[in-house]
Amino acid sequence: MKINILGSAGSILNQFIAEIRDVQIQSDSPRFRQNLERMGQVFAYEISKTLEYSTREVVTPFGTAEIPVLKNPPVLATIMRAGLPIHSGLMNYFDCAGSAFISAYRKVYKDGHFKIHINYVSCPDLGGEVLILSDALLATGYSMELCYRELLTYGQPAHTHIVTVLSSAEGIDHLKKNLNTSQITFWTGAVDEEMTAQAYLVPGLGDAGDLAFGKKGD
Amino acid sequence: MKINILGSAGSILNQFIAEIRDVQIQSDSPRFRQNLERMGQVFAYEISKTLEYSTREVVTPFGTAEIPVLKNPPVLATIMRAGLPIHSGLMNYFDCAGSAFISAYRKVYKDGHFKIHINYVSCPDLGGEVLILSDALLATGYSMELCYRELLTYGQPAHTHIVTVLSSAEGIDHLKKNLNTSQITFWTGAVDEEMTAQAYLVPGLGDAGDLAFGKKGD
Amino acid sequence: MKINILGSAGSILNQFIAEIRDVQIQSDSPRFRQNLERMGQVFAYEISKTLEYSTREVVTPFGTAEIPVLKNPPVLATIMRAGLPIHSGLMNYFDCAGSAFISAYRKVYKDGHFKIHINYVSCPDLGGEVLILSDALLATGYSMELCYRELLTYGQPAHTHIVTVLSSAEGIDHLKKNLNTSQITFWTGAVDEEMTAQAYLVPGLGDAGDLAFGKKGD
Amino acid sequence: MKINILGSAGSILNQFIAEIRDVQIQSDSPRFRQNLERMGQVFAYEISKTLEYSTREVVTPFGTAEIPVLKNPPVLATIMRAGLPIHSGLMNYFDCAGSAFISAYRKVYKDGHFKIHINYVSCPDLGGEVLILSDALLATGYSMELCYRELLTYGQPAHTHIVTVLSSAEGIDHLKKNLNTSQITFWTGAVDEEMTAQAYLVPGLGDAGDLAFGKKGD
Repeated sequence: MKINILGSAGSILNQFIAEIRDVQIQSDSPRFRQNLERMGQVFAYEISKTLEYSTREVVTPFGTAEIPVLKNPPVLATIMRAGLPIHSGLMNYFDCAGSAFISAYRKVYKDGHFKIHINYVSCPDLGGEVLILSDALLATGYSMELCYRELLTYGQPAHTHIVTVLSSAEGIDHLKKNLNTSQITFWTGAVDEEMTAQAYLVPGLGDAGDLAFGKKGD
Repeated sequence: MKINILGSAGSILNQFIAEIRDVQIQSDSPRFRQNLERMGQVFAYEISKTLEYSTREVVTPFGTAEIPVLKNPPVLATIMRAGLPIHSGLMNYFDCAGSAFISAYRKVYKDGHFKIHINYVSCPDLGGEVLILSDALLATGYSMELCYRELLTYGQPAHTHIVTVLSSAEGIDHLKKNLNTSQITFWTGAVDEEMTAQAYLVPGLGDAGDLAFGKKGD
Repeated sequence: MKINILGSAGSILNQFIAEIRDVQIQSDSPRFRQNLERMGQVFAYEISKTLEYSTREVVTPFGTAEIPVLKNPPVLATIMRAGLPIHSGLMNYFDCAGSAFISAYRKVYKDGHFKIHINYVSCPDLGGEVLILSDALLATGYSMELCYRELLTYGQPAHTHIVTVLSSAEGIDHLKKNLNTSQITFWTGAVDEEMTAQAYLVPGLGDAGDLAFGKKGD
Repeated sequence: MKINILGSAGSILNQFIAEIRDVQIQSDSPRFRQNLERMGQVFAYEISKTLEYSTREVVTPFGTAEIPVLKNPPVLATIMRAGLPIHSGLMNYFDCAGSAFISAYRKVYKDGHFKIHINYVSCPDLGGEVLILSDALLATGYSMELCYRELLTYGQPAHTHIVTVLSSAEGIDHLKKNLNTSQITFWTGAVDEEMTAQAYLVPGLGDAGDLAFGKKGD
């Protein structure tokens, strides 16, 4: 599994990361969503550099041009609900791609341990496709792994790009151990070394779903 | 249940409706999503005329202005997956509102009858709030009714606005019979008189979810 | 000249007006531009209710629908540079309209009096068209009047809608006196009663161009 | 003058280039503008990789993060009117940058030769700033050179990035000869080898201003 940390090189992406982390700025929820959307666009563009192109002849008003265009648009899967703004950004660039939506939830047991279940999935056939699977954050990595495995029941993609805005080092280790295949490329904005007991990234940004869409009721 | 059919009066909304219905134009999926999003904005604006405002004193560079601003932002609930683009449009105008997402699916039995189940819901507390519940289309009205009832378990809203881009006459009748309360206002772009046996609106536009996000796999 | 003050009725438009006036919020220049853009969309929608429609038969996947669609898209003229974000909003809804751009500047003479000159204009033929002429603010009304007259050299529009986000009472009086024809409709968000000696609206919002695009150099 | 041709490497940028060149697709003017805007975003992102960053400590809900953020936002200058959609894209990423607008026109004399004049400019102080100067196309290069020189009267930028979606080989030669300094970096999507007698790129895309905003009147 190849790992690309886009924030390591200086670029405007880091401005977006600074804004979603900043406890003052992140309380502006439309801006928070917009920053995730812009990050989705940057990931789309960087991922697009790794895709396959074929030459198409385009008729212009003054002649014809040969232009390398995408062989196959990818499928854009996202994890509900925090992944939605990143998914919007990915869709802005891969605008003819099909979409998949998936939801996993933690069922916490009395003794404190939890298990992750899939309760919602809507997905096109994935056999032979390029899959881009996005979520806001990678914490433990368990739900990302589970969502990925669930999506495989819709067919084996030719390649999968997993995208999160921020990731924990532990989550990346988890994916490395459990999804260690050359058929997966992992993309993230930045890697945080720690997590709280409740699996929040440290320094992280808090709860991405709540910041984008408000707190859930009981 | 008050009913507002926004497309009855001539406005640019009908241009958007024409484009999402038109079998040629609707194959341009980014434009299809954009038209749903623009319609969501128009619904947001028209609904906003019915909401309550209180006067806020705003300090400008040259003085102070008294401006009527929204007393409470509404909660924006949408039905997965076809409701997402309308939800984006509603969020563009009610940009500090909290969001709810809900999914219902039809379980079809051997004898052909089906039952609708809720499999995903993420929702803030709704007690006393203004709820705007959106979906792309209102067909039979069964899943809209079921989603609405499910959301009520998160608290009784002060008022609910149900929004769909297109509706069947039968679906509206269903809501009238089953949700007939002055606490609900129904908003739609246009009303179609017929439905196919598979509950597609006629003339309708086809499957809004497929047009926005691609066909689902098996 | 008919006058429509959209902020008089309670709607989400007033939230946008509050944000562009508010000295704290307006320093967020991307949000300032976005609020002007959203206001442009609302003006587009309200103006669209006054335009002419003809019925078009649209072929859907399941039949045909008769939909009233715009007879002729309007021409969207805007005054540089402060009008650009409103123009973007108008274009978002009238997306096949042609655009005109015009610039006027105040030449201030030694004795303090000034004269307004046109230095830039790019405009399609306007003969028989519906013209929507936008600017951020209406202050004295002199440059709006001059720009309107300059545009008339490109043909006599069938009707002209003049749109500004905020207007001074004096500026409206100026237009009433000098452009008093039933062929013009004036649209604004709110009317401010006073102006400073430098022709800033009071309470107003300051310099719309600077807030959107930064201060000019010398 | 360093030259970067972004379309040489396969990326989604070429899809956008294919769409703006394609005589069928370019007649969809909102999409044409959107493609220029998306290209502006991609240029913004790639240019951002060359800018200077300083580390800022950001307080998150769970700690502090050190993030490299832009030392100084650039100034975004664009040439009217065809540059406006690219400028929108650049602003989407450099959203706190100041803007400059400039217009040049060709005055054609009886004997067929023409001279380019500046008729409109609005510009902040540029001394020591990073300037990004954009236009849709680079044809002969004369108006780009003239606009650049006009902007220099507002101060000497620390560095200038010139951006066009498509460029003629001749236009690049012109800039190389006349603006050959290490203080300028040139960015373009693709280079066309030929031009018509009327200075349209071949194969090119036609008139970018007309495609974005409609034909001008007489």
